[in-house]
Amino acid sequence: MPADDLQALRALNAAVLSDTLDSLGLMNQAMRPFMRPLDETLPLIGRARTGVYVPVAEHRDGENPYEVEIALVDDLQLHDVVVLACDGPTDRIAPWGELLSTAAVARGAAGCVTDGLVRDVRQIREMRFPVFCGGIGPLDTKGRARMVERDVPVQCAGVLVRPGDLVFGDVDGVVVVPRVHEAVVLQRALDKVKGENLSRDALRQGEKLADVFRRLGIL
Amino acid sequence: MPADDLQALRALNAAVLSDTLDSLGLMNQAMRPFMRPLDETLPLIGRARTGVYVPVAEHRDGENPYEVEIALVDDLQLHDVVVLACDGPTDRIAPWGELLSTAAVARGAAGCVTDGLVRDVRQIREMRFPVFCGGIGPLDTKGRARMVERDVPVQCAGVLVRPGDLVFGDVDGVVVVPRVHEAVVLQRALDKVKGENLSRDALRQGEKLADVFRRLGIL
Amino acid sequence: MPADDLQALRALNAAVLSDTLDSLGLMNQAMRPFMRPLDETLPLIGRARTGVYVPVAEHRDGENPYEVEIALVDDLQLHDVVVLACDGPTDRIAPWGELLSTAAVARGAAGCVTDGLVRDVRQIREMRFPVFCGGIGPLDTKGRARMVERDVPVQCAGVLVRPGDLVFGDVDGVVVVPRVHEAVVLQRALDKVKGENLSRDALRQGEKLADVFRRLGIL
Amino acid sequence: MPADDLQALRALNAAVLSDTLDSLGLMNQAMRPFMRPLDETLPLIGRARTGVYVPVAEHRDGENPYEVEIALVDDLQLHDVVVLACDGPTDRIAPWGELLSTAAVARGAAGCVTDGLVRDVRQIREMRFPVFCGGIGPLDTKGRARMVERDVPVQCAGVLVRPGDLVFGDVDGVVVVPRVHEAVVLQRALDKVKGENLSRDALRQGEKLADVFRRLGIL
Amino acid sequence: MPADDLQALRALNAAVLSDTLDSLGLMNQAMRPFMRPLDETLPLIGRARTGVYVPVAEHRDGENPYEVEIALVDDLQLHDVVVLACDGPTDRIAPWGELLSTAAVARGAAGCVTDGLVRDVRQIREMRFPVFCGGIGPLDTKGRARMVERDVPVQCAGVLVRPGDLVFGDVDGVVVVPRVHEAVVLQRALDKVKGENLSRDALRQGEKLADVFRRLGIL
Amino acid sequence: MPADDLQALRALNAAVLSDTLDSLGLMNQAMRPFMRPLDETLPLIGRARTGVYVPVAEHRDGENPYEVEIALVDDLQLHDVVVLACDGPTDRIAPWGELLSTAAVARGAAGCVTDGLVRDVRQIREMRFPVFCGGIGPLDTKGRARMVERDVPVQCAGVLVRPGDLVFGDVDGVVVVPRVHEAVVLQRALDKVKGENLSRDALRQGEKLADVFRRLGIL
Repeated sequence: MPADDLQALRALNAAVLSDTLDSLGLMNQAMRPFMRPLDETLPLIGRARTGVYVPVAEHRDGENPYEVEIALVDDLQLHDVVVLACDGPTDRIAPWGELLSTAAVARGAAGCVTDGLVRDVRQIREMRFPVFCGGIGPLDTKGRARMVERDVPVQCAGVLVRPGDLVFGDVDGVVVVPRVHEAVVLQRALDKVKGENLSRDALRQGEKLADVFRRLGIL
Repeated sequence: MPADDLQALRALNAAVLSDTLDSLGLMNQAMRPFMRPLDETLPLIGRARTGVYVPVAEHRDGENPYEVEIALVDDLQLHDVVVLACDGPTDRIAPWGELLSTAAVARGAAGCVTDGLVRDVRQIREMRFPVFCGGIGPLDTKGRARMVERDVPVQCAGVLVRPGDLVFGDVDGVVVVPRVHEAVVLQRALDKVKGENLSRDALRQGEKLADVFRRLGIL
Repeated sequence: MPADDLQALRALNAAVLSDTLDSLGLMNQAMRPFMRPLDETLPLIGRARTGVYVPVAEHRDGENPYEVEIALVDDLQLHDVVVLACDGPTDRIAPWGELLSTAAVARGAAGCVTDGLVRDVRQIREMRFPVFCGGIGPLDTKGRARMVERDVPVQCAGVLVRPGDLVFGDVDGVVVVPRVHEAVVLQRALDKVKGENLSRDALRQGEKLADVFRRLGIL
Repeated sequence: MPADDLQALRALNAAVLSDTLDSLGLMNQAMRPFMRPLDETLPLIGRARTGVYVPVAEHRDGENPYEVEIALVDDLQLHDVVVLACDGPTDRIAPWGELLSTAAVARGAAGCVTDGLVRDVRQIREMRFPVFCGGIGPLDTKGRARMVERDVPVQCAGVLVRPGDLVFGDVDGVVVVPRVHEAVVLQRALDKVKGENLSRDALRQGEKLADVFRRLGIL
Repeated sequence: MPADDLQALRALNAAVLSDTLDSLGLMNQAMRPFMRPLDETLPLIGRARTGVYVPVAEHRDGENPYEVEIALVDDLQLHDVVVLACDGPTDRIAPWGELLSTAAVARGAAGCVTDGLVRDVRQIREMRFPVFCGGIGPLDTKGRARMVERDVPVQCAGVLVRPGDLVFGDVDGVVVVPRVHEAVVLQRALDKVKGENLSRDALRQGEKLADVFRRLGIL
Repeated sequence: MPADDLQALRALNAAVLSDTLDSLGLMNQAMRPFMRPLDETLPLIGRARTGVYVPVAEHRDGENPYEVEIALVDDLQLHDVVVLACDGPTDRIAPWGELLSTAAVARGAAGCVTDGLVRDVRQIREMRFPVFCGGIGPLDTKGRARMVERDVPVQCAGVLVRPGDLVFGDVDGVVVVPRVHEAVVLQRALDKVKGENLSRDALRQGEKLADVFRRLGIL
């Protein structure tokens, strides 16, 4: 993603992207609200790199339980967003923590999104690495789950995420923009932001909602 | 609500109101704990103005999906609390956001309570407008739900709220005082606050709970 | 617990304790993630003093609904952690609040853990008394539930807690170390913290996860 | 309950009782629908004898885990309905089974209602003893829960049940008639049954619902 | 629907229709599994006539709470399937029962599907009227919910149902075939039934699944 | 499993096995009660052959979505019980149906247990093949989930099942006997069945529960 594009995207937010996707008939692009940011002040923008976890009943000796996720993290590129699908909400596994965050930051990754839990929350916040997760808990995946595939389409928190899809998160939640619709969505969303500014100004001056909506068509 | 009354109410809190309602046999006046404030430092006091949402399967052309809620917001009066019943907890709709908050503030409304989701959280916090909600998410109601009635009795987060009921919220949750019981409840609650101060002082000085409870009857 | 031991424990955290317990085959020692601290900056270390609540359908006249919990709190010793089992998550009762916290602080208790709700959140935070709970709500237990036993083994948020077990909480959650395994767990955990420091440093310098994990065996 | 009364009650059903209770403003007398009969052909009519369970974390040696429930069952009288409150739905305990059913039948009890699980389902069905429960499972209460009180008001599947209340169950569910309202409810319900017969006949003959409802006021 | 078509559809079943819809990329046409038939031996085939319920907090005097549903039922045509959307699963309302079934049968309706509860189960089974529902319970809608619209697109048990869509139910569940895809789906489904017969015969004779799947491509 | 052993096991039931496992401290061997038999009259006895499913977001061309489960079913031996772990309860996938049942019967398998859904319920019942499942639904796994491993330890409906463990199911539920404890459990369970017969006879003759329990120690 060129730097110019990223700069433009910072004017957007999850709500306006969600509205724009809705207007194209893409009504299922916002992750479910159990997904919350560890730090509400850190927005997230980047492209999806996916992994999917399967529950395991117990650790088997001689097996490296982290093999696939190590490969995924070591292969991260600038602006990649790690998307870990755990069939969440779950209260059983925390597939992301401080050490993986440290490795991801070292490769220029933009953040992490998981419908599982996250641990080492204090340290991750200190790194200011954007993480959106299904909850917080200390439980390592070893003996509980294992990443079995990476860089495949996944379901995460109710949304289909394909590798390379644009992932956007802020305090209002996480929205996924499918790559094939990206250009249209971003242009429309930037236009809508301008319209909302007009509405807000009119409402602040005491104009009636009915009049503003009739005039600008935006709510 | 006269200014004097409001001033007195600021000495109250959700817990003492809940205890007082309990003591009158009104055991079901606290909204369920999934209801949380967007800003834990902002208490909410005012009178209910209600609206109720019904799910819709898709947006139909030519229909104004916001008609009833626009009418409700444009009719808000000083100290009104918007109460939006979505049969929550829901993860499907965010009926409240920045523009509606802006319009509500312009009319002197006291806050908003909804068992649905809320969006534009950053902007609403900046406005310091008290909002208590069932969660956070970007999903507009258009094509998902529609307000079908306003200013009728509603069930919100497990509590029956009638138009004009007193709605009180703080970090401990949201409590609804039915209008017919209001005078008794407020007087008893103010009395109880004084008793709690005595208990607290005694406990700080190391007196045993058993003795304090025997003497003051308050826990 | 001697002061030296406590000092050493402050170097630990919930995640490393959970991993250590896992390594001993004790995979069920972390409370479920609905348990959250009222103040994420306050760690909790101490020994369990337990109580268990049973729902009651209505308050019966002449009965002291707080009898057993008063006895428990009045008997607290230095570093005790009150563990209140409510079969949570529940949205019906808040067995802990400001007055009980005040009494517990006066006896030197280390904190409170409950899978029920907590009330008087603002005041408890001001006291800087560590509380981990299943939610926030104003509902007193009177007429809703009653503590029927204390200082017995309980299930709290999915974990078996016996009186005297070590209870550790931080922003990542609550972990219970059974007394019989305590010495081994604490020693191993302190060792693991050192290994993690090595891993973190290597990753910050850009070393691949695969190499770090092969070399140090820690993730 | 005299035999004449019982005979009259057999003309009633859960739906008409629920409607009648509604008409008196008693809107919360039907147990939640997870409660199902083991045998859909067996109606249940009788008076409540209650017990309440509290979870225990483990069995303690030397304790009789069944003490209170044995006392309850040994004290059952003709037409009594055992009502076991487990804070259900639960998937952890089955407080009722074949041996307790056998003992209850020997004392003339009318049936059992529990929001916990039931076991020995095949044998209980063969006895044609009416049981309504929150599920089926083999888990004994020993080491999991214990009845701590009997013959007290309880909450069972969302309904307040006081000792002596009339408990009515059929394939549509379980309805509780508070003793204080019993005479009025039963008389009104018997009247309503007659009105429904008129409506049914008119509808069978093809009369429009709108006309039938206008004429008879019953739906 | 001409009689010939209906005859052909009886060779189909929910599973083969679901597979066929899947093969066209329509992966969300099967209602969630909490939807069960009152009588597992009665299949359901017909066209959707929809209604949507909104919760109400209490009955208001002078209002006919059944107005819209009476109009819907009185307007039913041959082979219509009543589809009642209650935002289920719910444990609060039973919008369908014996009297409405009687009226629907008198108009030639094919059955009823609701994600709410159903009451008068014994009588409906005796009528052999196919009903698929989210549960069983006696609670009338009056004072709890009200149908606010009919013959509009609805969400029922997770599926979008438009008026006129083909609704198919059997013991495996309820599948909705959108009208626009109907011709293709039915033809493909009838073809698939034949292929499954070949597979079944081969497997019965002991052929390996791997060989059968390689040869026929059907599982 | 020799024929003699199987004959003896038919005298057992899920409840007595559960009690026996409890008495050895194995308190977590009964699957959760959402697991129900398709046919309540068919008991299930055999040894576990396991498979584990992982959600997939969409079907990928050129991939055989059934590869591992075909291999598992083609390898079934006499008295094997297929145990399919779907991280249930789920409403998304039905990994078992008529064709797999047909193939399993042809190999002498004893039944199937899955915490996912099952389809083709009518046909499976006609085959009298014992299946215990988490629900009923028509949704094929293709494009929704894929078996990624077989013959490994799995978590199914809350119980750890290792390949070769004894799986026992009847109308009361499914119980898993770990292989290592099998001999002790079966012997003790057969003894307990005899004791229960004595208790039942005494209770039928009207003896008090308190006396029976004191004398025989069995409830």
